[in-house]
Amino acid sequence: MAPAGEKKNILKRLDAGEVVIGDGGFVFALEKRGYVKAGPWTPEAAAEHPEAVRQLHREFLRAGSNVMQTFTFYASDDKLENRGQTLSFTGRQINEAACDLAREVANEGDALVAGGVSQTPAYLSGKTEEEVKAIFIKQIDVFVQKNVDFLIAEVCRKLKHFLLESADIVGINCHFDPETCVKTVKLMKEGVEKAGLKAHYMSQPLAFHTPDCGCQGFIDLPEFPFGLEPRILTRMDMHKYAREAYNAGIRYIGGCCGFEPYHIRALAEELEAERGCLPAGSEKHGSWGSGLSLHTKPWVRARARRDYWEKLKPASGRPFCPSMSTPDSWGVTKGHADLMQQKEATSKEQLEALFDKASQGH
Amino acid sequence: MAPAGEKKNILKRLDAGEVVIGDGGFVFALEKRGYVKAGPWTPEAAAEHPEAVRQLHREFLRAGSNVMQTFTFYASDDKLENRGQTLSFTGRQINEAACDLAREVANEGDALVAGGVSQTPAYLSGKTEEEVKAIFIKQIDVFVQKNVDFLIAEVCRKLKHFLLESADIVGINCHFDPETCVKTVKLMKEGVEKAGLKAHYMSQPLAFHTPDCGCQGFIDLPEFPFGLEPRILTRMDMHKYAREAYNAGIRYIGGCCGFEPYHIRALAEELEAERGCLPAGSEKHGSWGSGLSLHTKPWVRARARRDYWEKLKPASGRPFCPSMSTPDSWGVTKGHADLMQQKEATSKEQLEALFDKASQGH
Amino acid sequence: MAPAGEKKNILKRLDAGEVVIGDGGFVFALEKRGYVKAGPWTPEAAAEHPEAVRQLHREFLRAGSNVMQTFTFYASDDKLENRGQTLSFTGRQINEAACDLAREVANEGDALVAGGVSQTPAYLSGKTEEEVKAIFIKQIDVFVQKNVDFLIAEVCRKLKHFLLESADIVGINCHFDPETCVKTVKLMKEGVEKAGLKAHYMSQPLAFHTPDCGCQGFIDLPEFPFGLEPRILTRMDMHKYAREAYNAGIRYIGGCCGFEPYHIRALAEELEAERGCLPAGSEKHGSWGSGLSLHTKPWVRARARRDYWEKLKPASGRPFCPSMSTPDSWGVTKGHADLMQQKEATSKEQLEALFDKASQGH
Amino acid sequence: MAPAGEKKNILKRLDAGEVVIGDGGFVFALEKRGYVKAGPWTPEAAAEHPEAVRQLHREFLRAGSNVMQTFTFYASDDKLENRGQTLSFTGRQINEAACDLAREVANEGDALVAGGVSQTPAYLSGKTEEEVKAIFIKQIDVFVQKNVDFLIAEVCRKLKHFLLESADIVGINCHFDPETCVKTVKLMKEGVEKAGLKAHYMSQPLAFHTPDCGCQGFIDLPEFPFGLEPRILTRMDMHKYAREAYNAGIRYIGGCCGFEPYHIRALAEELEAERGCLPAGSEKHGSWGSGLSLHTKPWVRARARRDYWEKLKPASGRPFCPSMSTPDSWGVTKGHADLMQQKEATSKEQLEALFDKASQGH
Repeated sequence: MAPAGEKKNILKRLDAGEVVIGDGGFVFALEKRGYVKAGPWTPEAAAEHPEAVRQLHREFLRAGSNVMQTFTFYASDDKLENRGQTLSFTGRQINEAACDLAREVANEGDALVAGGVSQTPAYLSGKTEEEVKAIFIKQIDVFVQKNVDFLIAEVCRKLKHFLLESADIVGINCHFDPETCVKTVKLMKEGVEKAGLKAHYMSQPLAFHTPDCGCQGFIDLPEFPFGLEPRILTRMDMHKYAREAYNAGIRYIGGCCGFEPYHIRALAEELEAERGCLPAGSEKHGSWGSGLSLHTKPWVRARARRDYWEKLKPASGRPFCPSMSTPDSWGVTKGHADLMQQKEATSKEQLEALFDKASQGH
Repeated sequence: MAPAGEKKNILKRLDAGEVVIGDGGFVFALEKRGYVKAGPWTPEAAAEHPEAVRQLHREFLRAGSNVMQTFTFYASDDKLENRGQTLSFTGRQINEAACDLAREVANEGDALVAGGVSQTPAYLSGKTEEEVKAIFIKQIDVFVQKNVDFLIAEVCRKLKHFLLESADIVGINCHFDPETCVKTVKLMKEGVEKAGLKAHYMSQPLAFHTPDCGCQGFIDLPEFPFGLEPRILTRMDMHKYAREAYNAGIRYIGGCCGFEPYHIRALAEELEAERGCLPAGSEKHGSWGSGLSLHTKPWVRARARRDYWEKLKPASGRPFCPSMSTPDSWGVTKGHADLMQQKEATSKEQLEALFDKASQGH
Repeated sequence: MAPAGEKKNILKRLDAGEVVIGDGGFVFALEKRGYVKAGPWTPEAAAEHPEAVRQLHREFLRAGSNVMQTFTFYASDDKLENRGQTLSFTGRQINEAACDLAREVANEGDALVAGGVSQTPAYLSGKTEEEVKAIFIKQIDVFVQKNVDFLIAEVCRKLKHFLLESADIVGINCHFDPETCVKTVKLMKEGVEKAGLKAHYMSQPLAFHTPDCGCQGFIDLPEFPFGLEPRILTRMDMHKYAREAYNAGIRYIGGCCGFEPYHIRALAEELEAERGCLPAGSEKHGSWGSGLSLHTKPWVRARARRDYWEKLKPASGRPFCPSMSTPDSWGVTKGHADLMQQKEATSKEQLEALFDKASQGH
Repeated sequence: MAPAGEKKNILKRLDAGEVVIGDGGFVFALEKRGYVKAGPWTPEAAAEHPEAVRQLHREFLRAGSNVMQTFTFYASDDKLENRGQTLSFTGRQINEAACDLAREVANEGDALVAGGVSQTPAYLSGKTEEEVKAIFIKQIDVFVQKNVDFLIAEVCRKLKHFLLESADIVGINCHFDPETCVKTVKLMKEGVEKAGLKAHYMSQPLAFHTPDCGCQGFIDLPEFPFGLEPRILTRMDMHKYAREAYNAGIRYIGGCCGFEPYHIRALAEELEAERGCLPAGSEKHGSWGSGLSLHTKPWVRARARRDYWEKLKPASGRPFCPSMSTPDSWGVTKGHADLMQQKEATSKEQLEALFDKASQGH
């Protein structure tokens, strides 16, 4: 195993024209495995259940990921204490444990470690710029100390121009499906080029179809977060995403919430020719259904071909459900009382008020 | 950790009126994690990647499973060598490794180990009764030697009457959705009672909606196996399944293909009152969305209630797809040339013939 | 124009192996044209707006109908005065006008006139057998006097055995889609033949898809009667119905609610070979889309072929709507207070009570 | 009946702030009634079957239409002889008959007569401006002679600026659903106002939902023209359209293909307060389902209320069909060989070439 220092860094890879495959969303994957709580969405599992986090890293590595993102989303002390949450690990402990796990698995292959700089509820609560920055710096301190290979600033919706100038790689993560994200990165690329700047491009979309989203993305969909199953992308959808991202000039292609290891593997398989290799995990997979030639039933063997899967319009098995939803739109933004973070648990009265508000809206 | 010998066995538990929560389908879950090849569907990962199999066992245990099924589906030598497959482990090695893993994790809790007796392609290929029995016995030998707590004979479609008399627990696994399986077990129960017999009942359905299946189940659906995502059951669907199974008199309630740990957790949470406990994994989950009271956005907190999720008709996000499919029906049955198993890989000519046949059928 | 007396009567036609094409549902068609009120559904337009009724008869005749049903559904005095309805025509006047219109148009071609004997609310209100019979006799008196060619007893759900013996033609009308109706007539045929009897068979289904109906049919669907549009059958669906009805041994093939003239024309066109002729209206139509070879746009001309329309799965254009509904099931039957007919309009209090009941049910 | 001369003309009505209700699409309605051939779509029925055309005019008048459009779509000699069509009426005869019918029925009420100036295939065939103008003038001559009240230039996609300046009323007809049309008229209004001009606004959209249309509208949808049924708007959809059109400042609100008389009645009923009257046809209708209070079944009486129908998401009854389609896009435009009009029928070879082209595209 090569020590991190000897690996080619992310910019060298991208400058050389390599395609970098990202990893997927840990929060959603680990929620389904039983280690993350939907609602707070905090990453204490890095310290509490390291074997589960390590296993997921390994699965992404095996699926072809060239980058291990530290599992540090929402790992700031203000978030860890928000709304009555009481955890036995500090933000620092979680950030450190997450860095160690990512590095351990990255070194089992040729992957890099990316420190995930997380958004903080302090911002929406209207804290001062200084307070918000202090929270960011605390997390970044750990990344520096743990010597991560590069940083990713996630889910930042209001980028100032100087940020665009200082970032080496720009792109989009989370909140929307691949189609929307690729379109958006195209617009960013046009903007960057129009401004006479240069950048590399990345996309890390949801693994959920969201044609019905409004501007705030999948959080506003009535199915978020426990009814999103019918929207999950298939591996064929992922082939399409990889190709479209590549064609749009995106060279760092990964995923966010909803991505499972097999989704990442599909990206790597679609770009086999461009990357010159298949991931280790393809030993247990034939691209585009070719592995089905080994099935016992002849009519399933008859599905061992690309055009079958490309043309398939998969049924939902849910005749009483629609194909699109109307997103919630409460119209509350930064600074609104309803968005204020609080240390105490949401009280019963507060919840009742919200339930009433929701009922009136429908 | 209690040694297996001191645990209450499965019949004592059921006789005492306990609800036994099963686990889920390893083949599909590990395919998505990168350790099982779709097509052959064989379980060599038990020997090849034990850490991945162990982790999945742990997740089911944590989700509330009282039984660890050995990961031994299709672990017979005839299947391991079928259609050109060349694996570096023998059937015996895989069966042994699978037993050890199941026992190791079972002993981390109060779970039992069930040996999964698998179907064999020899039967459909028209081998003699003796040959088929010999294959079964080879696998059962390992289970006896490894001292599993009980056996489950999976996916047997033609049960003779003496089998019904000799089995202590009867039920249904795989191929159909929970609704269909519960209905079927009800019919079995009526039949058993009408015959003056007594039994315990179990169900281990798919985690896919299959209202459009024909009599052979989900394998005939055009979406099998790579386009089933829109059919995946939500945790709310699982609550419903657990309640209906319980009301039908089923006391061994588990799952098969498509089940992920969070599906099993939902079964355990629905039956909290009946079982007198919540699973360990519920530490990271609030039943019926209650954990959302910790979300940052007020309109998501407004979803922290049971009636919201019970009424939700989740959209597919796929407006170009239908809600039901027409299953393949090739009408080939046991003994047909197309069903004969072969050691060599399916040849290109054989595949072309199947592709043609499929095209004509549409 | 041949006088009615010289026409071959219905039994002679059927005995000779002819296919008899029926007409469609006047109530629904004239509601959309503005002459029938949804709710009471009474046929006073026969007397009030004879030109509109005559025109619809003519369109059905032109589409291939061999029978003109008198527009006499619900034309009994008890129904005409039900729930506050005040009409300026008596039941007798309406029945007479309807007979005259049907005869006038029938004689413009080779069609027969069928008197439609209607159900009466008196039955559900629990009136005596004598009272119910008296209402029927009043209507039948007009039919006898007006010399209709034969009678059709509509929407009778509880047929006694002697009725089966005395009827020459048995079948099904209204309440369900063609698929369900054809299946039901098959069952009737089996029953009739098993009883050693002989009959001719007819079907007059809805022109709405109702795969989700319960045993009471489309009235219980939440879309009845003002949201049924997405369920309307296409002309291709009608070809399929005609073929399946014919194959099932049905020789009197017509329609009920939802049928428009072009639906009937499609039946006649599908059975062109069996009937030895096309309807007059086919002068303005090419079977199976062949008329599109005259379209200005080449991609529309490319649709001028049968296999295009046979394979088409028409989209709803309604991504926020499901494909199936759950029928109302209030469980009230004959004799229940809620079913009692009343002369006075439904009071506001009565309506409020019903609205409440409906809300609780959902 | 007032002679036309004494009626208030269209501009006086609009200038006075009146809402003018238009009528619906004759071509589609009469195709379903058996008098128009899909493909050529020519209006010879005005001369051939005047009673059918007259009846449809009457139904629209009764439904609330304030304008009778002459049934003169495609009534030019070049179109009447296109692709092998042989009709026994000249363009002039058809135009004259259509004017007479419109005037006759308009005078049965307070309606105006609008001459529908139709597009001509000569334009797409690349004929000279003079030739195209000559065809228009021929038709307009009849309108002048027959003294129609005003003209409507239909389906003109490339309006020059001088046209915008010279037209008194601008708007949109056909090709798209009400939602799209109202949005488009809003954009036109913004443009007109930005240019410092003044106009009245009209919209005559399809009665089909077309959220999936490309820029050429419903003709490119695979369902056009024989599979559009599931897209038909309900009367509730029409209420919504009328309100949105009114709110957008549109005061001439009518319809095009797919509109049946009950659709127009729904527009008139929605705007009862603004217009100060209900149409004659409402005698047979209760707005928003109120007529159902007269139904025999109590659970149908429970639907006699506005909020029930407003909230209803009508099911399609078609679980094997999607909710949206992908439009054809052949990319041929004015001047392309495939668009050339020809007198002779499309030959078998020409059709085969088109069928091949279509197959490759899918």
